[in-house]
Amino acid sequence: MIADQTESFVTRRLEEADLTYGGIPGDRHFGITARADTRQPMYPKDTEIFNRRQISILSVEELDVIAKELGVKAILPEWLGANLLISGLSNLTQLTMGSRLLFPSGAGLVCMGENRPCRFPGEVIQKNLPMVPELEKKFVRAAYKKRGIVCLVERPGTIKPGDQIKILVNDFANPLQ
Amino acid sequence: MIADQTESFVTRRLEEADLTYGGIPGDRHFGITARADTRQPMYPKDTEIFNRRQISILSVEELDVIAKELGVKAILPEWLGANLLISGLSNLTQLTMGSRLLFPSGAGLVCMGENRPCRFPGEVIQKNLPMVPELEKKFVRAAYKKRGIVCLVERPGTIKPGDQIKILVNDFANPLQ
Repeated sequence: MIADQTESFVTRRLEEADLTYGGIPGDRHFGITARADTRQPMYPKDTEIFNRRQISILSVEELDVIAKELGVKAILPEWLGANLLISGLSNLTQLTMGSRLLFPSGAGLVCMGENRPCRFPGEVIQKNLPMVPELEKKFVRAAYKKRGIVCLVERPGTIKPGDQIKILVNDFANPLQ
Repeated sequence: MIADQTESFVTRRLEEADLTYGGIPGDRHFGITARADTRQPMYPKDTEIFNRRQISILSVEELDVIAKELGVKAILPEWLGANLLISGLSNLTQLTMGSRLLFPSGAGLVCMGENRPCRFPGEVIQKNLPMVPELEKKFVRAAYKKRGIVCLVERPGTIKPGDQIKILVNDFANPLQ
C-alpha cells in the first residue's frame, strides 16, 4: 500500500510494489533521509536525518484485537497508513529490532522496532465509522503495543499480495548482523 | 580512525573525521550499501544490501579486558579496525540496538548492535606482538561480547578526539524511534 496523496497519510492498495533503498517510491515515508519530528526530540525539528521508518507493517491479528478493543467490526490497515499487512504473526509488534523479513522476489526488510501509536489514525477511524462514539479518543490506548513495526529496506525487490514471507527473528544474545 | 588501505582493515588515526550518510568517506566500510558476506548468509554472497555496519566503535574499558585476557599490555583499537574509541562506557558492547550517540557537532549515530568477533584481528594482534604465543587463536574467545558495536550515521557532522558524547539508551519497553 502507498500513501501518495499529499494531504493524507492514508494508504491505498497496489497490485504490487517495488521496494527500493528508502522504501516505496512516491510514498509519504519514502527516502533515505527524512525530517526529524516529535519522534526525534534529540534533533532540532525538521533536521535531515537517516530514515528508519521507510516501511510500516501491520498484522491482521493485531488489527483484529484493536477493532475488538474499540468495539468495531474491522479496522482497515489503510486508515493507519500501513504499507504492508501480514498475517500469521499475532505478535508482530513484539518482533525484535534487527529481525529480517524476506520475500519471494529476494527483497529483504530489517525491523527497526515498533511503530508507536499517535493520535492521527484515530481521527481517520472516527471519520470512517461516525456512528461509533469516542474512537478518536480510544485509539492510542487500544493500539498500544499492537501498532505494528517500521522497517528499512535492506535489499530491493518487488512484493505483492499473497507473498509468503520468511521471518528471521533477531535474538539479542546471538544477534543477526 | 579510517581504514583507507585496500589491503587491510587496520585503521589509522585522524585529526577529525566527517561522518556522512554511509560512514566516513574513503573508509573500508563506507557506503549506504555494502556486499553481503558471511555475516548475512540469508543473501547470496556479494549481493548489494543496505549497510548497517558503517561505523565501528570500541571502548577503552573493553579493550583493557581483552588485553588482560590475552596476557598482553595493550590492544590498539587500530588492530581491530575500529573507527572510534570511546571511554566511560565499560559495557559498550551491551548497548541496545537503536541507542543513539550524539556528538558536540550535532552528528548522531544509531547503534545497530554488537560487532561479533571474527578471526582476522587476531592475526594482526599476533603480528604486532610476535613474542606472545597463541594470540591469534585466543582472540575470538577473549573478545566475545567485548568487541564493541557497529552504527549507522543518522545525522552527518564532524567528530574529533576528545568529543564528549551523549548516549541515549534505547529501552525496548519504551523505544526510541
